[in-house]
Amino acid sequence: MHAYRSHTCAELNKSNVGDTVRLSGWVHRVRDHGGLLFIDLRDHYGVTQVMADPDSPVFAEIEKVRSEWCIRIDGNVKARDESLVNSKIPTGEIEVFIRDIEVLGKSEELPLMVFGEQEYPEETRLRYRYLDLRREKMQKNMLLRSNMIQSIRKRMWDKGFNEYQTPIITASSPEGARDFLVPSRLHPGKFYALPQAPQQFKQLMMVSGFDKYFQIAPCFRDEDPRADRSPTDFYQLDLEMSFVTQQDVFDTIQPVMQGVFEEFGGGRKVDSEWPQISYKDAAKWYGTDKPDLRNPIKMQDCSEHFRGSGFAIFAKILEQDGTEIRAIPAPTGGSRKFCDRMNKFAQGEGLPGMGYIFWRDQGQGMEAAGPLAKNIGPERTEAIRQQLGLGVGDAAFFLGGKPKAFESVAGRARTVIGEELGLTDKDRFAFAWIVDFPIYEKDEETGRIDFEHNPFSMPQGGMDALLSDPLSVKGYQYDLACNGYELVSGAIRNHKPEIMFKAFEIAGYGKDEVEKRFGGMVNAFQYGAPPHGGCAAGIDRMVMLLADEANIREVIMFPMNQRAEDLMMSAPSEPMSDQLMELGLRVIPQDQ
Amino acid sequence: MHAYRSHTCAELNKSNVGDTVRLSGWVHRVRDHGGLLFIDLRDHYGVTQVMADPDSPVFAEIEKVRSEWCIRIDGNVKARDESLVNSKIPTGEIEVFIRDIEVLGKSEELPLMVFGEQEYPEETRLRYRYLDLRREKMQKNMLLRSNMIQSIRKRMWDKGFNEYQTPIITASSPEGARDFLVPSRLHPGKFYALPQAPQQFKQLMMVSGFDKYFQIAPCFRDEDPRADRSPTDFYQLDLEMSFVTQQDVFDTIQPVMQGVFEEFGGGRKVDSEWPQISYKDAAKWYGTDKPDLRNPIKMQDCSEHFRGSGFAIFAKILEQDGTEIRAIPAPTGGSRKFCDRMNKFAQGEGLPGMGYIFWRDQGQGMEAAGPLAKNIGPERTEAIRQQLGLGVGDAAFFLGGKPKAFESVAGRARTVIGEELGLTDKDRFAFAWIVDFPIYEKDEETGRIDFEHNPFSMPQGGMDALLSDPLSVKGYQYDLACNGYELVSGAIRNHKPEIMFKAFEIAGYGKDEVEKRFGGMVNAFQYGAPPHGGCAAGIDRMVMLLADEANIREVIMFPMNQRAEDLMMSAPSEPMSDQLMELGLRVIPQDQ
Repeated sequence: MHAYRSHTCAELNKSNVGDTVRLSGWVHRVRDHGGLLFIDLRDHYGVTQVMADPDSPVFAEIEKVRSEWCIRIDGNVKARDESLVNSKIPTGEIEVFIRDIEVLGKSEELPLMVFGEQEYPEETRLRYRYLDLRREKMQKNMLLRSNMIQSIRKRMWDKGFNEYQTPIITASSPEGARDFLVPSRLHPGKFYALPQAPQQFKQLMMVSGFDKYFQIAPCFRDEDPRADRSPTDFYQLDLEMSFVTQQDVFDTIQPVMQGVFEEFGGGRKVDSEWPQISYKDAAKWYGTDKPDLRNPIKMQDCSEHFRGSGFAIFAKILEQDGTEIRAIPAPTGGSRKFCDRMNKFAQGEGLPGMGYIFWRDQGQGMEAAGPLAKNIGPERTEAIRQQLGLGVGDAAFFLGGKPKAFESVAGRARTVIGEELGLTDKDRFAFAWIVDFPIYEKDEETGRIDFEHNPFSMPQGGMDALLSDPLSVKGYQYDLACNGYELVSGAIRNHKPEIMFKAFEIAGYGKDEVEKRFGGMVNAFQYGAPPHGGCAAGIDRMVMLLADEANIREVIMFPMNQRAEDLMMSAPSEPMSDQLMELGLRVIPQDQ
Repeated sequence: MHAYRSHTCAELNKSNVGDTVRLSGWVHRVRDHGGLLFIDLRDHYGVTQVMADPDSPVFAEIEKVRSEWCIRIDGNVKARDESLVNSKIPTGEIEVFIRDIEVLGKSEELPLMVFGEQEYPEETRLRYRYLDLRREKMQKNMLLRSNMIQSIRKRMWDKGFNEYQTPIITASSPEGARDFLVPSRLHPGKFYALPQAPQQFKQLMMVSGFDKYFQIAPCFRDEDPRADRSPTDFYQLDLEMSFVTQQDVFDTIQPVMQGVFEEFGGGRKVDSEWPQISYKDAAKWYGTDKPDLRNPIKMQDCSEHFRGSGFAIFAKILEQDGTEIRAIPAPTGGSRKFCDRMNKFAQGEGLPGMGYIFWRDQGQGMEAAGPLAKNIGPERTEAIRQQLGLGVGDAAFFLGGKPKAFESVAGRARTVIGEELGLTDKDRFAFAWIVDFPIYEKDEETGRIDFEHNPFSMPQGGMDALLSDPLSVKGYQYDLACNGYELVSGAIRNHKPEIMFKAFEIAGYGKDEVEKRFGGMVNAFQYGAPPHGGCAAGIDRMVMLLADEANIREVIMFPMNQRAEDLMMSAPSEPMSDQLMELGLRVIPQDQ
């Protein structure tokens, strides 16, 4: 017989009754029924009930066993009494009578219980991560992550993509965040950087003719920690293709993402219609470039109904250039209580409040209520109602000013309204491509034109567009929004050196600086670069959505804490002085 | 029609004749047959011959096209004349008459030709890697690497292993090489380290109950560059299993490795018998712990034939303790010329020379020649011949002294002899497990006992063995040798804290130091650790063997040069002073 097991803890069933078996695993739970000991023996695959009474030759040893000890037992498989069958687990029909036991690994007193649902502070969980990971939820989350990545790889291979590894110790990459630096020992005083993304390398591969690349790529950004962001490394499904248009990229990635969400979504609905919404419309309708389309609310411009109306605040706002009154329709939100609560929400977000109208029927037909309705009169109120398609029992909220100033609050109000009214379908994944991002934006204060997003995207209209009005130029650049998160980001790249230099020139970067900062890629483009594009999808974010977790540390095996420390492994730590010496570095004493 | 291509450059054949098609790719070669222009248009998938004559509406534009321009052409598929069919390529039956052309990316004058076999200095190849990678051999090598890793993943999944990612920004790992450090911005003066291997994390996963883990894992060692070693990062197939014996690990990894070598070995023979050779026997028979078993030569101890013999040098050596005379049989090496050459080889390696005997027949029956035979006389000579199983036309070489002093030269001599005599079968992959490594070795000078290999291996015999004679204790530790390289290394781990502390104590490490250096893992072992073991296989090395390349830079997409620099991306480089400031670091000025 094998030294440790003849079966896993999920394998035995009625057909094994009478067999002599060997099992290894952890003591999940011990129950003492007065001289009859039951142990739930757990391994990665499942749980098997093993038991002993004083007839067992090793009863005395079994009595010593405690939770989370790792043991090996030999025994005979017995059928459970009909009344004791547990149909919830595959081994529920049997139990194993223990004839021999070996303690493989004892356990000290546990700082964290594996069995049960007890909550522990995050610091405890991370310090004893090896125990925390034994818990059922964590085993499930890690398996989900592993299976999801496996599925992604298979889907990408099926589409003719090859996975290639790009350097991890390399040069600074221009992704806009802070680099992690790695001092060079062979070149003291010089530093490598860990890549924020394999952006330049994947583009270089396209220049090299590799046609279809992907990688489950580790990326590194030295960012301040946040619940939904790892403070050190994270993973992307990174892909790039040559000789493609924007639509080709969409057609490639949609079946992969949709397939993965269908496979691992646990039965939640996965939308197959992925609308393409312009950046401008997304801001107008949803107040964000990562809208949650599970929420059916679509905001609308109601300016005309308020222009010159009796509601002086809005009428006045509209006298200024570039202002607008935006309505958030709230079907079923037609009560003063709800409207007041939402008004308070807006005040909590730093606005003076949200005007509202709601429609009710107090036995005398439909009636529009709320201060706004009074001020603008029944005709305008009715026109608004008709535009928004609302009726009795519904409400609408209004925000006014320059869109940039109120849009993000409006977007958050839309979310809260959708959730509070139960309009947002929680059991669903809703996707939308956000397209037509502007290439540039103007800093209101300095008047300087800078890149809005990614400087490497191809401007729609090419060189001609850049030579006209840069601020109106859109890029072949896109994000995929899912349930309010940005899941994918990508672009068709600017592969023409002359257009790239022009694009940078408009943003105030001279040729020298471009060559200095992005030399590797820009040089390569001078030797027959193909049109190419691609995208990157956030792996950790996908697992979070699928596992329905709000904290990224629930879907990473060994995460850092919120201060970017690993207390279990003691990282970061103070280096030895000879290590610093070799690197030619000195630590500057910090003020206490 | 698609903006860039209706077909790839490998797709068109006779069935497409008459079709209007669109192709995109690179101008591989242009031939001008007096008013008739032929272009080999190349993409990732293949080459298609496209052509034009002055009847083409775009002939003038095509005349301007140069090597490595990226172009898109439209045209009609025509059958080639029977005599011009190229049966070596899938598109060899057709050509495309060009009716339209678009230049997608022009090329400056090329610093490196893609077409043809011209050799370039490595610095040129690395600086223009994006061009170098367009060459057929590099495309093939990168595809081989990608396909091999894909195959490994599929094989591991089929065996029930799950891939989990371990941290890359983490704490120092105890693999014995130099760490790359990463300064922490949030904790100035403290540093993370990049993992030399995921060793501790994979063991922690076993403690967490994950049962079967693997990862195509990036590893980082700050080592001085060498042709067969990347100076920064490299990849391992890293795996670990719980509840296993050494043989289980062998039975798991052998089919994976053998399968991969059969799949990608290009028809070379792949041995299915993998002998298990003890570390001691490997040294004795092959003079190395990574023997090349394609070479049939097995060295033997011939001490008894020389003890007290007339060959005074050897007789004298044997009077000292711990000495031995080792024979290298050399079938078919029986000529004075060959023997003298091998003797010179030994002198070049710093030895006084190698004694030899060779057997010839100059018409008067078998005769033993060479100085050794004369000195020890016919009887001893004949006994040697019989022990080694040699005959007319063969030779044997002899080295004497303490094995540690001559064994590595003997091993190299065995290699040279096998190759020069054509005994080594080049078209074959021969594997052997090297087992029973000693846990400790004694420093001859200081008398100190230190770990021979890996401090985390389980000693054979457990605690009892450690309490007897440590220097005789062997570990459950193993390497896989293939064609003279170490391809895999692994162990059954020491998962019992008390045995681990004892093992470290013998090597002079106190409990405090062990806890400080390996605290994460040692703490975890106190909470019910399972028996576990695993191994790691060198991915880059495997690709090198399969691609028959001696330089690791031929199998890595974007490698560093031998000074650990990336000249294309300018890494490493000088940081900006505010970056250093944020990290709390100062560069110590270097002496020029």
